[in-house]
Amino acid sequence: MLTNNQRKYIQSLHQKKFRQQSGAFLVEGAKSVQEVLASDFTVDMLLATEGFCKENARLIDNKRTQTEIVPVSELERVTTLESNNAAVAVVKTKDNRPLVAGPGEFVLVLDDVRDPGNLGTILRIADWYGIRKLICSDTTAEVYNPKVISASKGSFTRVNWWYGNLPAFFAGVSKEGGPEMPVYGAFLDGNDVHTMSFGKGGYLVMGNESNGIGPAVSPFITEKITIPRFGEAESLNVGIATAVIVDNWKRSTK
Amino acid sequence: MLTNNQRKYIQSLHQKKFRQQSGAFLVEGAKSVQEVLASDFTVDMLLATEGFCKENARLIDNKRTQTEIVPVSELERVTTLESNNAAVAVVKTKDNRPLVAGPGEFVLVLDDVRDPGNLGTILRIADWYGIRKLICSDTTAEVYNPKVISASKGSFTRVNWWYGNLPAFFAGVSKEGGPEMPVYGAFLDGNDVHTMSFGKGGYLVMGNESNGIGPAVSPFITEKITIPRFGEAESLNVGIATAVIVDNWKRSTK
Repeated sequence: MLTNNQRKYIQSLHQKKFRQQSGAFLVEGAKSVQEVLASDFTVDMLLATEGFCKENARLIDNKRTQTEIVPVSELERVTTLESNNAAVAVVKTKDNRPLVAGPGEFVLVLDDVRDPGNLGTILRIADWYGIRKLICSDTTAEVYNPKVISASKGSFTRVNWWYGNLPAFFAGVSKEGGPEMPVYGAFLDGNDVHTMSFGKGGYLVMGNESNGIGPAVSPFITEKITIPRFGEAESLNVGIATAVIVDNWKRSTK
Repeated sequence: MLTNNQRKYIQSLHQKKFRQQSGAFLVEGAKSVQEVLASDFTVDMLLATEGFCKENARLIDNKRTQTEIVPVSELERVTTLESNNAAVAVVKTKDNRPLVAGPGEFVLVLDDVRDPGNLGTILRIADWYGIRKLICSDTTAEVYNPKVISASKGSFTRVNWWYGNLPAFFAGVSKEGGPEMPVYGAFLDGNDVHTMSFGKGGYLVMGNESNGIGPAVSPFITEKITIPRFGEAESLNVGIATAVIVDNWKRSTK
């Protein structure tokens, strides 16, 4: 059984403030916990049903994680999910290490993407298309939010991220004078993504759900791109738009 | 002010059972209500703030809708949204009229897509790409669910749908002996959507979030298609996959 203090600690990680204080976050549900056990994340504690522990004995042994076998009723008390009959892991957050695009590498950049579900979906898209780096404005949803982790379906274990000031980042990248990388940005009035030619690498900036790419980041965009519209919807969801643009990039450079 | 009966009636429409009994559903929030007022839907009743009524006086007059000016506190009592400072409309559902693809027309088909958010997103994608017809298995999320309407961002006013038995539908389509239409289906082991050639028209079937296209519908698929994977995510969300396939279809046939 969990002690009251353990239970309170885990429940505190539902909130950003306590995740930041503790340097830990929650990974919940069978698939996500399996993925994090198989990843390079440090798992501080695992709460799981007997069934989950038996099925995943090797993964759990490899991590040498402190494990508490608990009934489903206990999982339901500490999980943020609507239902959870498998496991909750307490996992150490990673250091916020700077990232840049390597030669020929394609990197995603999010300018103020606020919705956790959208961020989780974008992690999954990045993982599907083999994009390993995600750069987020400080105002973008927190990646350790349980909704982000859950929506990413385990993809958070295979994508690296850095949070910071985007104008300062792009100013730094161009000052370093390395090979010039294109900075693509999604706008409603850019070049048709179906007919433009992508280089092998570069940055793709996606903007806020309501306002798009902000005025502080816009000056760094070297190529505005747009998904052509054939009907009447005013816009596409930012996750949908990310997938369509990345798919066009992959299609035209493979 | 609303009467108690009016309030109870509107709140009852949060539930499918009462939407079906009453033949009515809710449209909520400024943008969605504006769109439905400008559409061919019959609006039975409008609850709105004074500000919303002033800003949209012409739209409201054109519909000759019974309108109640209410304070935000009253809207918050009857809305399903987290916040609503504009309007709620009670709208008549439409008859469930059969749909088929016309010559050269592309029609979306959903086999057991359960999540209301996914269905709303798919309506928005259809609307962006100019797809006017959506055919849904009886087990697909109900289109009049407030979460579907809200996620569609007004696109529900520009896409027609029919709910029914998909195997019977496809059997009927081929029996009519009209021009043979391809039936594309999204699978994890189909032809690469980047390199295959689409015809101008046809049906695109998207399957359940966990299980994909079911065994009763699979035999009617004439062309299996797949979005190529470059990384390690196990799958893409059904809304994302719909957008990517439809985008490839539009790109290759325009």
